[in-house]
Amino acid sequence: MGNFKLKNRLTPEAYIEGVLAGDRVILSRAITIIESNLESDKSIARAIIQAILPKSGNSIRIGITGVPGVGKSTFIETFGKHLVAEGNKVAILSIDPSSQRSRGSILGDKTRMEELANLKEAYIRPSASGATLGGVANKTGETMLLCEAAGYNVILIETVGVGQSETAVHGMTDFFLLLMLAGAGDELQGIKKGIMEMADMVVINKADGDNVALSKIAKRQYQNALHIFPMPNSGWSPIVSTASSIKNIGINTVWERIQEFKKLVDTNGYFVKNRKEQQIQWMYTTINEELKQLFYGSDKIANQIKELETAILNSKISPVNAAQRIVEEYKKGF
Amino acid sequence: MGNFKLKNRLTPEAYIEGVLAGDRVILSRAITIIESNLESDKSIARAIIQAILPKSGNSIRIGITGVPGVGKSTFIETFGKHLVAEGNKVAILSIDPSSQRSRGSILGDKTRMEELANLKEAYIRPSASGATLGGVANKTGETMLLCEAAGYNVILIETVGVGQSETAVHGMTDFFLLLMLAGAGDELQGIKKGIMEMADMVVINKADGDNVALSKIAKRQYQNALHIFPMPNSGWSPIVSTASSIKNIGINTVWERIQEFKKLVDTNGYFVKNRKEQQIQWMYTTINEELKQLFYGSDKIANQIKELETAILNSKISPVNAAQRIVEEYKKGF
Repeated sequence: MGNFKLKNRLTPEAYIEGVLAGDRVILSRAITIIESNLESDKSIARAIIQAILPKSGNSIRIGITGVPGVGKSTFIETFGKHLVAEGNKVAILSIDPSSQRSRGSILGDKTRMEELANLKEAYIRPSASGATLGGVANKTGETMLLCEAAGYNVILIETVGVGQSETAVHGMTDFFLLLMLAGAGDELQGIKKGIMEMADMVVINKADGDNVALSKIAKRQYQNALHIFPMPNSGWSPIVSTASSIKNIGINTVWERIQEFKKLVDTNGYFVKNRKEQQIQWMYTTINEELKQLFYGSDKIANQIKELETAILNSKISPVNAAQRIVEEYKKGF
Repeated sequence: MGNFKLKNRLTPEAYIEGVLAGDRVILSRAITIIESNLESDKSIARAIIQAILPKSGNSIRIGITGVPGVGKSTFIETFGKHLVAEGNKVAILSIDPSSQRSRGSILGDKTRMEELANLKEAYIRPSASGATLGGVANKTGETMLLCEAAGYNVILIETVGVGQSETAVHGMTDFFLLLMLAGAGDELQGIKKGIMEMADMVVINKADGDNVALSKIAKRQYQNALHIFPMPNSGWSPIVSTASSIKNIGINTVWERIQEFKKLVDTNGYFVKNRKEQQIQWMYTTINEELKQLFYGSDKIANQIKELETAILNSKISPVNAAQRIVEEYKKGF
């Protein structure tokens, strides 16, 4: 089976040429290489990334989050179509470490955004699968570089909105959009305060019908909440607006605001500065992730650590002593 | 010089007995051992911690933060005296990774809280010094255990309020208190949104004289801001109150609220559950910190990483490729 799979592989050069020519089929196959865990694919992946790197980066990268039920898919469908109508090529990616992707859910993702998926200026790719958030985020980050090299100038990266993946998305995007609902109880919203902190814009979605009045109240509340906090480094004051994805109301406003943001951060130098910092940070995050894999990936460590947890809970050893003991053993056994 | 220092050391048993007997002089000397970077002291430190561990934990641990100028020292002086008047034994510790401690600043710390420092039921120890936040936080955490074993039943841990140390303090305390000022511009406050998220209580300090009216407005604003966010796992809704440390107004309210909190989390089981999670987390944080030290502490790595940063910024290599390359070299050279 492994060999059969490998026979379907192209040469690195074929992937590189195809991606740079904007060939969607080759792009998809190249992303499959990036997502692959086969050792033989990893070297092809490195060669592809290495070659397309100088052609990447020419886009605005937009992170989009919100809890399930907030209407993310419908928002992205309407927003994506608007972006295409404005002359953009749009790639829609996602980070969801919980997803065990199957053919079913790929179809599912495309069905959710049926009209957008049928536009040749839009490219939809669901989340990579993987054991760790770091691994999944790396794959999405490299997929983003491929999409840029293939000519997509707006990248939307969606998250599931309930975990740590928002931080990863924030770390690889230029603009962070948080979708909220009016009138939902605080707990229903499920959005952590730390996520509010990252938002450049909050959009109260489903602001239609009976919801219009409530949405206006929510808008004011969120605006007050955001104003209590200090100005972000970008120099951009986070804003709140209302939208109806179903009725296509307020969607153009979102894109206008993002363009205003882009103009501001191009002028004040934040855009380039932030991109550079993100790249360096990306290296460090990956290093730290790999160091942890090396350590926690060992069966011997995994067994010992369970024992130490029990010892700590029974006050038999202090957390610091436990940590130092196991790292010392690790050093010996390397 | 090294030998001269070592001659001043007691046996581990002498430290342990002295600490458990509540001897303040021995407690201070034991903390010096905990804070020491001498290899010979480290094994004494382990023995001390190991022995006092079963006697630690019997306290309420309160984290206190706020930007410089918010009146933290005056608040802690007034609050600490109130706690002592209520029959408590109070230890005041701090985490400040930026501090290069000298005899001067120790005196400084005690002068700041002169009356409190003179009470025999209060024990003040300024921040340990150290190269990394993780190292400093570990020393403060172990100092906290010693103070508990010495009979202090209220531990106040102060942070400087401008960096990452708040997260460390939040990770080792039961209740997190944020001091704010009324009428300060948002930027002056300098408090990150993530820190607001951790607060169990916000106290608007300096609510006296002309500031009373402004403080009431600020109280309402912060209350609104906090209510937008979901209920924390503790089941405790964060509250806002006003206080004047100089005039001793509202200080008793703070302690009453903390006691209400304690009653709630004792009843709903959160107190014990959170303490257990914190201990396990403490081990993992220390392990990850030590793994990073092993890696970044190598001169060879440090040189290579600088070169890789430059290569990344010039699009010569991708962040993921750079990270994988250097970790592979590290594995070989171990």
